[in-house]
Amino acid sequence: MKLATRANGTADGELVAISEDGERCLPVGSRWPNLLAAIEDWPNAEAECRAAAERLASGAGDAIDPTDMRAPLPRSWQWLDGSAFDTHARLMQVAFDTKPIAHDKPLMYQGMSDRFYGPLEEVPFVTQANGIDFEGEFGVIVDTVPMGTSAEDAMAHIKLIVQINDWSLRALAVPEMNTGFGWVQAKPACSMAPFCVTPDELGDAWQDGRVCLDLLIDRNGERVGAANGREMSVGFHELVAHAAATRELVAGTIIGSGTVANEAYAKVGSSCISERRAIEMIEEGAPQTPFLQFGEHIRMSAITSDGTMPFGVIEQKVVQA
Amino acid sequence: MKLATRANGTADGELVAISEDGERCLPVGSRWPNLLAAIEDWPNAEAECRAAAERLASGAGDAIDPTDMRAPLPRSWQWLDGSAFDTHARLMQVAFDTKPIAHDKPLMYQGMSDRFYGPLEEVPFVTQANGIDFEGEFGVIVDTVPMGTSAEDAMAHIKLIVQINDWSLRALAVPEMNTGFGWVQAKPACSMAPFCVTPDELGDAWQDGRVCLDLLIDRNGERVGAANGREMSVGFHELVAHAAATRELVAGTIIGSGTVANEAYAKVGSSCISERRAIEMIEEGAPQTPFLQFGEHIRMSAITSDGTMPFGVIEQKVVQA
Repeated sequence: MKLATRANGTADGELVAISEDGERCLPVGSRWPNLLAAIEDWPNAEAECRAAAERLASGAGDAIDPTDMRAPLPRSWQWLDGSAFDTHARLMQVAFDTKPIAHDKPLMYQGMSDRFYGPLEEVPFVTQANGIDFEGEFGVIVDTVPMGTSAEDAMAHIKLIVQINDWSLRALAVPEMNTGFGWVQAKPACSMAPFCVTPDELGDAWQDGRVCLDLLIDRNGERVGAANGREMSVGFHELVAHAAATRELVAGTIIGSGTVANEAYAKVGSSCISERRAIEMIEEGAPQTPFLQFGEHIRMSAITSDGTMPFGVIEQKVVQA
Repeated sequence: MKLATRANGTADGELVAISEDGERCLPVGSRWPNLLAAIEDWPNAEAECRAAAERLASGAGDAIDPTDMRAPLPRSWQWLDGSAFDTHARLMQVAFDTKPIAHDKPLMYQGMSDRFYGPLEEVPFVTQANGIDFEGEFGVIVDTVPMGTSAEDAMAHIKLIVQINDWSLRALAVPEMNTGFGWVQAKPACSMAPFCVTPDELGDAWQDGRVCLDLLIDRNGERVGAANGREMSVGFHELVAHAAATRELVAGTIIGSGTVANEAYAKVGSSCISERRAIEMIEEGAPQTPFLQFGEHIRMSAITSDGTMPFGVIEQKVVQA
């Protein structure tokens, strides 16, 4: 099942079911006006969402206006972003000129969750001097996860899967990281692709808590990345358990994979500019690829082996705030 | 003006005005059912809150049942905690056996904001082995702060002031800090004192963006801290500007001071156990004071020179989850 959030003038938007082909939508109904309300009462809400999806399959619903689509969760109470791709971590050490991170648990920070940009929104930044970068990721949305939940039990709390662009300001990242406090200024609001999907919707592409799809990334129409989500060193269920070790996770919590990266980066490219620059430092002695300038376009879409795009497409322009 | 949130079966509770003596309360009314809604429309909401406060002053309202009082914001979209007391930072380096943190901007991390415990709630933890500690702090609540707001302009966005206990798990803190990603497991939900106040309510005790009040802290009835909020190296307005440098701050964002600490710690004591242990390490060669065990009680209240407590009292028991 595919769901989305349509603009309706409210902060949380309107929850709609999406047809299999991603072309039509149907409101789920007033009992669960938005996705945040639905995820708080998921067993009941899911049944009604699936009923709406069936009506869609029978021909009901309206054609989607892509410009009406917001992030599936335009805001949520909590966003915890992991860094589960070892290749990304290794390349970022080169990019940042930092030491390898010693850790026996997953890497994770808490980021800004009060706003997720919609898939076609322009994204404003204060200055190009901050080193504007994108990070292509996958994420999951959970219902309430009790404190101390095991990774095994966490799997059943993964209700929806999303595709995210975690905008990052590289010039601000290392000084913040060096304090040990994590990132505030270096991590402004993220963006989300229009559709969220239930795990079953991904079929064989959802394996061991990993989204085994290529994430296609284009910069101004040129392909720069097609890394696959399969290579997470830990699955999403393990990230959820890590996050819930000492806190109950509120329903609607979004957990991110970190930048999707593959060992075969020479073949598949990268899901952020910093990685590309690190590869250039390794291979050519210095970074060549510039960070983003105002006016540049970033497109991201995960793709299945038969060419469909379960999450739809993020296509955004970077602009001056 | 004093405000508070009364339990009414909803997630956000009911917004009430509080009498000067902290004994009586009066609902602000259905237009702003809770504080999160009010802070989103503060100019209008404030006028109605002040009208309720005037009716209270004329004798209207009901006696407060302290057990009905929740955190002023039982949940919010964003909690950004600073570390603005240099004495705390210096002692924590001893406690954690870490190097001094190099930074030319305020220290700040994003923490859990989907739950703030009420002032009398029991606080559950998974295990005593995690090194359960308290941190007495002050905090401010802002309305919408545009991206790039200066410190000077940030002052006017500080609408309410709160008193916070930032519960911390010390055994988990250093490994997380060493990753550079900040704290997730080491920082579970915080608690808040029952009343939030407008800056004018503090009179001379609100100076240059600082809460110049002693924060009295008792552990099982024994005074362990009475540090004053005056010694922040940067004021709250500077913390707000730091937070807003690359993001718009959503209305209802809470910004924390970090643990209140004074140079004269030998005289005034400490606002967390870790500092006390660091002082023992310096003076006696080894820490003596244990972290919290289940069943222990922590009481916190800021006090004015005439003995009143503007934020009321946090009084909580630590329990097994």
